[in-house]
Amino acid sequence: MTQANIDPVDFRRALGSFATGVTIITTRTADGEALGLTVNSFNSVSLNPPMVLWSLAETYMGYAAFQNAQYWAVHVLSAKQEPLSNRFASKGEDKFRGLDLEEGLGGVPLLRGCSARFVCETAFQYEGGDHRIFVGEVKAFEQTPTPPLVFHSGRYAHATPRQPGEDEPRHPYLAGSFDENFLGYLLGRSHYRFFAQIRPHLQSEGLSDEEFYLLSTLTLKRSLNSKELDSAMSGILAGGSAAALDSLRRRNLVTADEPSDQIRQYQLSAAGRQLALRLIAAAKVTESQIAERLGEADAVVLKALLIRLLGAIDPDAKALWE
Amino acid sequence: MTQANIDPVDFRRALGSFATGVTIITTRTADGEALGLTVNSFNSVSLNPPMVLWSLAETYMGYAAFQNAQYWAVHVLSAKQEPLSNRFASKGEDKFRGLDLEEGLGGVPLLRGCSARFVCETAFQYEGGDHRIFVGEVKAFEQTPTPPLVFHSGRYAHATPRQPGEDEPRHPYLAGSFDENFLGYLLGRSHYRFFAQIRPHLQSEGLSDEEFYLLSTLTLKRSLNSKELDSAMSGILAGGSAAALDSLRRRNLVTADEPSDQIRQYQLSAAGRQLALRLIAAAKVTESQIAERLGEADAVVLKALLIRLLGAIDPDAKALWE
Repeated sequence: MTQANIDPVDFRRALGSFATGVTIITTRTADGEALGLTVNSFNSVSLNPPMVLWSLAETYMGYAAFQNAQYWAVHVLSAKQEPLSNRFASKGEDKFRGLDLEEGLGGVPLLRGCSARFVCETAFQYEGGDHRIFVGEVKAFEQTPTPPLVFHSGRYAHATPRQPGEDEPRHPYLAGSFDENFLGYLLGRSHYRFFAQIRPHLQSEGLSDEEFYLLSTLTLKRSLNSKELDSAMSGILAGGSAAALDSLRRRNLVTADEPSDQIRQYQLSAAGRQLALRLIAAAKVTESQIAERLGEADAVVLKALLIRLLGAIDPDAKALWE
Repeated sequence: MTQANIDPVDFRRALGSFATGVTIITTRTADGEALGLTVNSFNSVSLNPPMVLWSLAETYMGYAAFQNAQYWAVHVLSAKQEPLSNRFASKGEDKFRGLDLEEGLGGVPLLRGCSARFVCETAFQYEGGDHRIFVGEVKAFEQTPTPPLVFHSGRYAHATPRQPGEDEPRHPYLAGSFDENFLGYLLGRSHYRFFAQIRPHLQSEGLSDEEFYLLSTLTLKRSLNSKELDSAMSGILAGGSAAALDSLRRRNLVTADEPSDQIRQYQLSAAGRQLALRLIAAAKVTESQIAERLGEADAVVLKALLIRLLGAIDPDAKALWE
């Protein structure tokens, strides 16, 4: 263990291993100005009477205002409020500009869209090294169940609820089986089951899986040449993209530029684009139903992790999206 | 906002919207007994001098011991320490039984495997409603970068780092395109790219994709009848499982029980099982390389979310694993 002469940088990093939510604490100064800052040193103290606490650096510009404030409000931020957290963590002026505020006891400015808000009356102020600890009695509060903004190791994070028994070992029939412990198995099964819900839309448009994959790839760029198409489809269309491409061209869904420099460029025709838009609309409905069943917050994290996975195994993927 | 007569249950629920890490705080009583409890009201206070705080209910059995303790230690738990958190949150006796302890200043018991540990000397004890606030000066600390155990809304959670710019809207070429905003697109591309890394192993064993899917499904149960196989393969093998099944039987990788009640049961032969085990071993290597590139913590959350997704869209999946 690091002892004596504690290095503030190391100490701060070690503190960062304790995950926290993110709050914005606001008050109204004696001359009526709205004041607020981002704070993660918030925590609960007492249930009866209801009390919470947070710590403020004595060097903070608005320190005196909080010392003299009778009331202040704690806003627990939701996952969507990262920009608000950054705004109130900056040194810029007029952080409240353009915000739709409410007012609480003593005129404290209240922000909207938070996971929870607590309006507090200062109960105690305590010494705590280079910070002052403010303990407030909660006079009013409200809560909206939303995914939280989390801070850990100096970065924002998502919180994903753990499943009960998640750590318990499972007992497959064989010592080894291709089961839910395999990422590859889960990806395959998830893809096929998900795609099975999209497939009826393709079939009603007379498209095979392969034709749909090719069509959807062509929505990503203004045009692609056959080398780019083959690369995008590699591992997806076992026999390359030629057969599906021919079929789409025969149906006038895809057109080809005359090769000037010998590299033929393919793009969606107007009819191909119309078809893609119809399929996108249908897929969006299916997808939002599934995201609702999964939970919006989990869907956001799942997408973020799949993008990260593709970044790790498929460096070409991003080039197609950009 | 809820005012006056604050309901403790509602208040506690609102406090739960602030995410926290989880700590275990330990001390040594005057008569040498090790004492410890799970606490999430921990937070940082001061950098210089280095100080932290936490709150303890006055009704806690060991309250007097902490009041009289000169030293105590804070253990910030890692994602793998949920069982330890539960153990020290329970009322059971001898929470330290079987644990491999170290000792800190004043003989405080130190647990192993944590994200961070802080050994503190009590600096202040403050009144805080029905709790007492302990402020300690940090005398020694250490940190190991590990994913944290998170607590939110009364449940444990994983923390997944957000990507910078994650909330910014992307600008695809078309108003609508099948891009990384679509979960279906991400699942498909992730599956195909992941599978492309497994495929060489199948090919070296002379297996087609379809034969591999069927073989891997047969690792999940002692035996499956053709109806169960067709159901497990629906949406995966376009033409049903018959062709791949015949091929595997011709190669003596799959055997069939004589139908007594007219329902033929299929299972892996000894050779089929050997082949499956070879493929599983190879796939495990590939998978662990990918998980390492993705990050172990993210891989755990990704798997958990895919299992949850399958729970939402594919109720049959679990029946195959159980």
